Amino acid sequence: MKLSPSIEALIEALRCLPGVGPKSAQRMTLTLLERDREGAALLAQALTTALERVGRCQRCRNFTELPVCEICADPRRDQALLCVVETPADVMAIEHSGSYRGVFFVLMGHLSPIDGIGPEEIGLTELASRFHEGDLAEVILATNPTVEGETTAYYIAQQARSAGVTISKIAHGVPLGGELEFTDATTLAHALSGRTRVAEQ
Amino acid sequence: MKLSPSIEALIEALRCLPGVGPKSAQRMTLTLLERDREGAALLAQALTTALERVGRCQRCRNFTELPVCEICADPRRDQALLCVVETPADVMAIEHSGSYRGVFFVLMGHLSPIDGIGPEEIGLTELASRFHEGDLAEVILATNPTVEGETTAYYIAQQARSAGVTISKIAHGVPLGGELEFTDATTLAHALSGRTRVAEQ
Ligand SMILES: [Zn+2]
Ligand SMILES: [Zn+2]
Repeated sequence: MKLSPSIEALIEALRCLPGVGPKSAQRMTLTLLERDREGAALLAQALTTALERVGRCQRCRNFTELPVCEICADPRRDQALLCVVETPADVMAIEHSGSYRGVFFVLMGHLSPIDGIGPEEIGLTELASRFHEGDLAEVILATNPTVEGETTAYYIAQQARSAGVTISKIAHGVPLGGELEFTDATTLAHALSGRTRVAEQ
Repeated sequence: MKLSPSIEALIEALRCLPGVGPKSAQRMTLTLLERDREGAALLAQALTTALERVGRCQRCRNFTELPVCEICADPRRDQALLCVVETPADVMAIEHSGSYRGVFFVLMGHLSPIDGIGPEEIGLTELASRFHEGDLAEVILATNPTVEGETTAYYIAQQARSAGVTISKIAHGVPLGGELEFTDATTLAHALSGRTRVAEQ
């Protein structure tokens, strides 16, 4: 069936959203047109505004509307403590934990030679010069516990080591409140190999 | 953590999409800003265009960019055969089946007194005058097999009956290729009560 061209175009355009297939794009389109034209107009406006205003922090590469983001510019944050993460979502998760007062460096990805993503694409040249500035007390590697994340962490650790910067890595293991039985195999393997000694006989 | 206001606004605005909660709205926002700014710009444009151009067909109430939609205006369609459905998605599903050459009437919902949706809100006054125009050979009720759909179908059947129009109802039952074992109870009940005699001893 031929649909009206602007409905077809909207269904197609919604598929740029992650996790949205043809069926849900159609449902979204019809729902917006049927019941939430105001929401659709607000969404169009919010997209346009975000695209216009959101850029990257000059210092940490995270999204911001300012030249330097609020975290990097905050005098209460410890600028000598640098946590390296893959994405802005990771920054949000760590901030949400309320247990970190240092600053971040956001790779916006991980090394993935197959996809043409090398050190340059994820800002490792900038990160290396940061290491050589000499004002870092510690670099915390918080990439994801995946093959790509671990490879990226290993690469960065080499960079930091050659610049004489102290490196640490966040602990991976069974989540607090999680049950061993329902923990996936990779996490369990990490938890086992990263075991710490509790007491000596 | 404070996010940049236009990122917060975009996350919030994406939640107007059906099935999108806070977590997926955040993921969508970060993915668009990180990797698909072009897609995001196209989406903003597609939303604006659809809102500007898409209205309702004067005759069948379905979405269209024209005063009268392509189906209603098609001289090859049988204007004497009218199929009543709840939503534009139902029109698309029936059109997709390739087995219908009549026209439609789209309620854009169903009777739901609790939500303040009465006959007026779903176009039943227009539908009744259509019945009284006298050029309909048959009205096919194709509302959903739900309590509200059945109630709406019953109401329309009464209207059609009082106007002397022939009424039929699409068959509900076990889907072709479906297995009895995996058919839900309501469908099975419909299939049983709607059984047809195959042969007599
Ligand atoms: Zn920053
Ligand atoms: Zn029409």
